[in-house]
Amino acid sequence: MTQNQCTPPCISLTTDFGLADPFVGIMKGVIAGICPVARVVDLTHGIPAFSILDGALAIWQGWRYFPARTIHTVVVDPGVGSERWPILAAMGDHWFIAPDNGVLTLVEREVRIRGCEIRSWRIDNPAYRLPQQSNTFHGRDIFAPAAAHLAAQILHEEIDLPSFGPELHDRIQLNVAEPVHHPDSSIDGLILKSDKFGNLLTNIPAQDICRLDASWTMEIAGRKITRFAHCYAEVPPGELFLIPGSSGLLEVAINRGSAQDEMGTVPGTAFRLQRR
Amino acid sequence: MTQNQCTPPCISLTTDFGLADPFVGIMKGVIAGICPVARVVDLTHGIPAFSILDGALAIWQGWRYFPARTIHTVVVDPGVGSERWPILAAMGDHWFIAPDNGVLTLVEREVRIRGCEIRSWRIDNPAYRLPQQSNTFHGRDIFAPAAAHLAAQILHEEIDLPSFGPELHDRIQLNVAEPVHHPDSSIDGLILKSDKFGNLLTNIPAQDICRLDASWTMEIAGRKITRFAHCYAEVPPGELFLIPGSSGLLEVAINRGSAQDEMGTVPGTAFRLQRR
Amino acid sequence: MTQNQCTPPCISLTTDFGLADPFVGIMKGVIAGICPVARVVDLTHGIPAFSILDGALAIWQGWRYFPARTIHTVVVDPGVGSERWPILAAMGDHWFIAPDNGVLTLVEREVRIRGCEIRSWRIDNPAYRLPQQSNTFHGRDIFAPAAAHLAAQILHEEIDLPSFGPELHDRIQLNVAEPVHHPDSSIDGLILKSDKFGNLLTNIPAQDICRLDASWTMEIAGRKITRFAHCYAEVPPGELFLIPGSSGLLEVAINRGSAQDEMGTVPGTAFRLQRR
Repeated sequence: MTQNQCTPPCISLTTDFGLADPFVGIMKGVIAGICPVARVVDLTHGIPAFSILDGALAIWQGWRYFPARTIHTVVVDPGVGSERWPILAAMGDHWFIAPDNGVLTLVEREVRIRGCEIRSWRIDNPAYRLPQQSNTFHGRDIFAPAAAHLAAQILHEEIDLPSFGPELHDRIQLNVAEPVHHPDSSIDGLILKSDKFGNLLTNIPAQDICRLDASWTMEIAGRKITRFAHCYAEVPPGELFLIPGSSGLLEVAINRGSAQDEMGTVPGTAFRLQRR
Repeated sequence: MTQNQCTPPCISLTTDFGLADPFVGIMKGVIAGICPVARVVDLTHGIPAFSILDGALAIWQGWRYFPARTIHTVVVDPGVGSERWPILAAMGDHWFIAPDNGVLTLVEREVRIRGCEIRSWRIDNPAYRLPQQSNTFHGRDIFAPAAAHLAAQILHEEIDLPSFGPELHDRIQLNVAEPVHHPDSSIDGLILKSDKFGNLLTNIPAQDICRLDASWTMEIAGRKITRFAHCYAEVPPGELFLIPGSSGLLEVAINRGSAQDEMGTVPGTAFRLQRR
Repeated sequence: MTQNQCTPPCISLTTDFGLADPFVGIMKGVIAGICPVARVVDLTHGIPAFSILDGALAIWQGWRYFPARTIHTVVVDPGVGSERWPILAAMGDHWFIAPDNGVLTLVEREVRIRGCEIRSWRIDNPAYRLPQQSNTFHGRDIFAPAAAHLAAQILHEEIDLPSFGPELHDRIQLNVAEPVHHPDSSIDGLILKSDKFGNLLTNIPAQDICRLDASWTMEIAGRKITRFAHCYAEVPPGELFLIPGSSGLLEVAINRGSAQDEMGTVPGTAFRLQRR
């Protein structure tokens, strides 16, 4: 028994399909038919419909916690059936299968910072698609089969990325707002999303705040948040505070409560961080 | 190592249990105890409570994308604990485990059209049930163990369908509304359901429309929909259009929007398609 | 091939993380990196945020249906990052990994009744954690790696529970309301939760009612419920009734309807059962 038979190939799935319809289950059925031993892990299917930014955030938050050689399949695809290409990207020692619409932008940015190589290919080999393809469900017809065929290549130690299609040297990049640092050392940022607990993720790397020997005030939506904590339980329930989130971004939170419910902010809400 | 040990038996699960309670997880725990290597795939657990029609639609949409010899376990079971029988049905090269309440009607209809054989058995062998059975959770006590025992039979190449119980020659059929074709070539149909994106699935096979060299108008809820598209991105956001859906049924959609939100239609809403 | 290679170690996951964020998927990515062949089963991720009682109920409902030697990982952890310990508990022939906050109380109570041994250890071996740990996501940084390392120990038949950390002889116990039996044989109880179907779970063991040769009236929220049934289909839709639930607790239900919607009760609502 070889190492590869002991370690099943791993496929992660991220979509905006939700779980109320059979879409995700159908993708897994397709995978089971092509590579029955692949381990399929749902990263999340709760991406808001058509939100490429939310998909980009989720796969960026998650990919690094999977083993090397994972095939991350990301299907947030408002352009399904139109001219955008399905792509296979090798970024460092992980693989990504997705529409070329910018959903991999944040991963790509980080992989570049790490100095890893990135290569990508169009997926146009008909042998790696279902025989019949719709124009509305490429998750089933193109992305799941491509992931499963790559998993089968891994299993049999016959990895052949160029077999998927011609190499693609530029990928569509998503325009993600960066924090703006002002000369008076204040920082303009924005809220990226709210998580299930109502914690508000910002686009400010927590280390940008933590490494400066200073106290900060966040001005947001007419409020000022001055409290900073390192764990939720430090702060009495009811009080808004800033905290380094688990993804490395600064977050706004309430202990045992929802900052989202308290603030009513929507993704994209701007704020300013001022040194005190 | 035989082929079967390399290809784990596959069980699909479709229920109206949702994911907020531990019901589905408990079914998987039961399966893990009986056939630890079975691959369990959630088709969906988001079937509206007690809706046999929605369950029938989901398994019909999904089953064909799974590998042959999959054990599809469908638990939408408003009559749990009453006189309806749990059944095992062999339809072509797939197996189905479900209450005999019509939830397999659409699959059965399609398998018949393909000319495949259908046989079924009552599940009444106590060896294939949990030792103690409730009257309210047969997913745990009867359906999951039956699926797992069949998976174990597949694994050990000792498939014995009659061991489940006496053969059953008639199964309860669900009354599903068919499209009505009028002499003036108009067609009466209805909305079956809305998916997560707000696309409205109709009961009209898309090919019935597409193969006719004609343009169509859908009259529905006081509106007329005349646009037809082959992919979402063809149509500017905001405009309702008809599109062949990924399950082969005609759908009503809005690009990057929800036809359901725009229309406010409920399942069962009638419409007429007129040739122009 | 040994027995253990054929039977993959089983890890169950129960959290209040929901499925909209990538949290659960990230935990599974971590597990896949440490013990790629472990079978991971979601019990539920729908525990209401921060509700230790609901987490305790879910794992109590579920654990006994999993195979022996399952590693049950329960992350409902409002005190994440504060002084509460992560623990590994051996209860009979199952293992539990959780914060020491009472979430295992109901399992522990039942395992004691069965006369099984309970031992527990703090998880403080840094080799069983991720190299970098946040203060806000111990599911990823501590609980998932600990479960996966234990799974790897099972796989290699090198189980070493003391390697996780020092033994812990007392665990935090949750204060769960017990039914109160009055001299006139009436019983005071309360509603623990509503399930997806709107069935109301009480804290009364169904056998306490069933074994008494008597009829009962439940007085709750100004209503009297007198009907008792053994399966839902026994009672016409619309009528409230009492029924032994699948977890062994008395429930309030409506056939093909939601007792929760009808009653509007919240968890903790008190009631009295009177013998007639």
